[in-house]
Amino acid sequence: MRGTVIHGPGDIRLEQRPDPTIIKPTDAIIKTVATCVCGSDLWDYRGINDVGDPKPIGHEYVGIVQEVGAEVTSVRPGQFVIGSFFASDNTCRICRNGYQTSCPHKEFVGGCQAEYVRIPLADGTLVATPDVPEDGLVPSLLALSDVMGTGWYAAVAAEVKPGSTVAVVGDGAVGLSAVLAARELGAKRIIAMSRHASRQKLATEFGATDIIAERGPEGVAAVKDLTDGYGADHVLECVGTAESMRQARASAIPGGNVGFVGVPHGVEISGTGLFYSQLALRGGPAPVRRFLPDLIQRVWDGRIEPGKVFDLTLPLDEVADAYTAMDERRAIKVLLRP
Amino acid sequence: MRGTVIHGPGDIRLEQRPDPTIIKPTDAIIKTVATCVCGSDLWDYRGINDVGDPKPIGHEYVGIVQEVGAEVTSVRPGQFVIGSFFASDNTCRICRNGYQTSCPHKEFVGGCQAEYVRIPLADGTLVATPDVPEDGLVPSLLALSDVMGTGWYAAVAAEVKPGSTVAVVGDGAVGLSAVLAARELGAKRIIAMSRHASRQKLATEFGATDIIAERGPEGVAAVKDLTDGYGADHVLECVGTAESMRQARASAIPGGNVGFVGVPHGVEISGTGLFYSQLALRGGPAPVRRFLPDLIQRVWDGRIEPGKVFDLTLPLDEVADAYTAMDERRAIKVLLRP
Repeated sequence: MRGTVIHGPGDIRLEQRPDPTIIKPTDAIIKTVATCVCGSDLWDYRGINDVGDPKPIGHEYVGIVQEVGAEVTSVRPGQFVIGSFFASDNTCRICRNGYQTSCPHKEFVGGCQAEYVRIPLADGTLVATPDVPEDGLVPSLLALSDVMGTGWYAAVAAEVKPGSTVAVVGDGAVGLSAVLAARELGAKRIIAMSRHASRQKLATEFGATDIIAERGPEGVAAVKDLTDGYGADHVLECVGTAESMRQARASAIPGGNVGFVGVPHGVEISGTGLFYSQLALRGGPAPVRRFLPDLIQRVWDGRIEPGKVFDLTLPLDEVADAYTAMDERRAIKVLLRP
Repeated sequence: MRGTVIHGPGDIRLEQRPDPTIIKPTDAIIKTVATCVCGSDLWDYRGINDVGDPKPIGHEYVGIVQEVGAEVTSVRPGQFVIGSFFASDNTCRICRNGYQTSCPHKEFVGGCQAEYVRIPLADGTLVATPDVPEDGLVPSLLALSDVMGTGWYAAVAAEVKPGSTVAVVGDGAVGLSAVLAARELGAKRIIAMSRHASRQKLATEFGATDIIAERGPEGVAAVKDLTDGYGADHVLECVGTAESMRQARASAIPGGNVGFVGVPHGVEISGTGLFYSQLALRGGPAPVRRFLPDLIQRVWDGRIEPGKVFDLTLPLDEVADAYTAMDERRAIKVLLRP
């Protein structure tokens, strides 16, 4: 099959790779219908994370089940399925609490920018759609595999409540999805922090009521200005840098909530600062599996269209161009069709 | 009047000081019925915090209202009142959210180890008991002024729920109060971490179902042993050191909650570590005012007896001995009678 391999910073290649096979009786093999490039793939692409040896890349996928191991009972060949980037058993106490990305049996699902993918722990990981979807639904279903699930987790981790004021730091696909999540969870006022016209436009479409272009202390001051000097009730941090986390915490009302889903790079939190802010802080790799049934239904019913974050679609053959487009911020997020 | 002044590490003196007077129309003056020494006073006493110039000390109090300013309407002379160590307006949005210790108008109420105290923002700070209590209730009412309110906040910040498993790090008066709070909030299993027989005994009386004497990694392993390897659902950190915070976080189940009320000294939290633990972290100076009406009722009805944390009572004249007793861990907490 054809599969994407990162060889080093800026070096993305589509190569011939062995077809995946069932290794454990709990595995499934899916034929990829669509995959995409994640903001976190860019950490590797830009050389911020050390890549080491060449490795298959990509962790977002929707596809048709081709084959299942002997112990798989919840999905069957022919079904259209979505799964998270972390496989999980979905039966242990941590999974039942809704934190499948901390499952003791979790396994990262890598190498998804490819024609076929092996999914471990298929019963605990994959969720089938009610039927094979029409093609127009595919982008929104693919978005659930990571960005929309992650934006949703930002809002849930920050305990967004109906009628509340929410600020979103980060205008990438996750930040934009977080705006949509906040709207779905009933936020009354949603402040999107973005300085790019196309992203501001989509944020507004997804439910943002206010846009702030400033960053850092100026961005914080602008949030305070919009909230009678108090700050937002819930702040969703969707970047992962020390600066964005500082901005997120400073934008929240004392005693408010910050949900952080940007993978932290160089983020250190002073216990004293956190103490006197009285903020609740929760983050992590989104337990997408928890949200999939609900989110699939919302997409299926046409209530949300998270696939709008894909503003460029390319054939898998052009995966290297997809990385370039995202790296240069010419695209918010690129969908790939094998 | 007589009032306690700290002159430097280990140097506590009861001195003649001017009687407090109404300065603002929102002030009240109370005649102290009982006051006490706080674990956080020991940070000064031990020279861990720099004391600087001699200053009046003590921030816990119950008393009888002597005089109120022209704008005070909710309490009147003759009433028995309890207040928090932070005065607050109790009307702003942050107070209405229940975070009175972050009120923009907050003022620290210091110098309470004295015969009289001036309480700023009396309407927003003081809560009167249904009647002047009999003497036997005074220790439990005094405990609400800080330690019981703080232990309660630890449990609330960690979102303790009925039927859950709670671990409490710290066996000082706050930690013991946190055990009691967890019981009142319906925790099924309460693991107290304590290595002192008298404190273990009180923890058990307050509702602890398990005692762990080990600390650090051994303590964490013991919590895991008691919880099928997962960790506690809710961990209440009641010390404030880097080690106790590490122990608290490591004792929680991934995706669990940590409430931290020990004033942090040298606590730094890695964003990456917090991210992958998926823990929610909330702490701060307890918004005691939020809990006072409920806690007063629980004491008044005889449902809780938090005053048991006072295992030594001294006349105010012997305040220096009170500090020594607590510093040498001969007493959990010392009540002072002017």
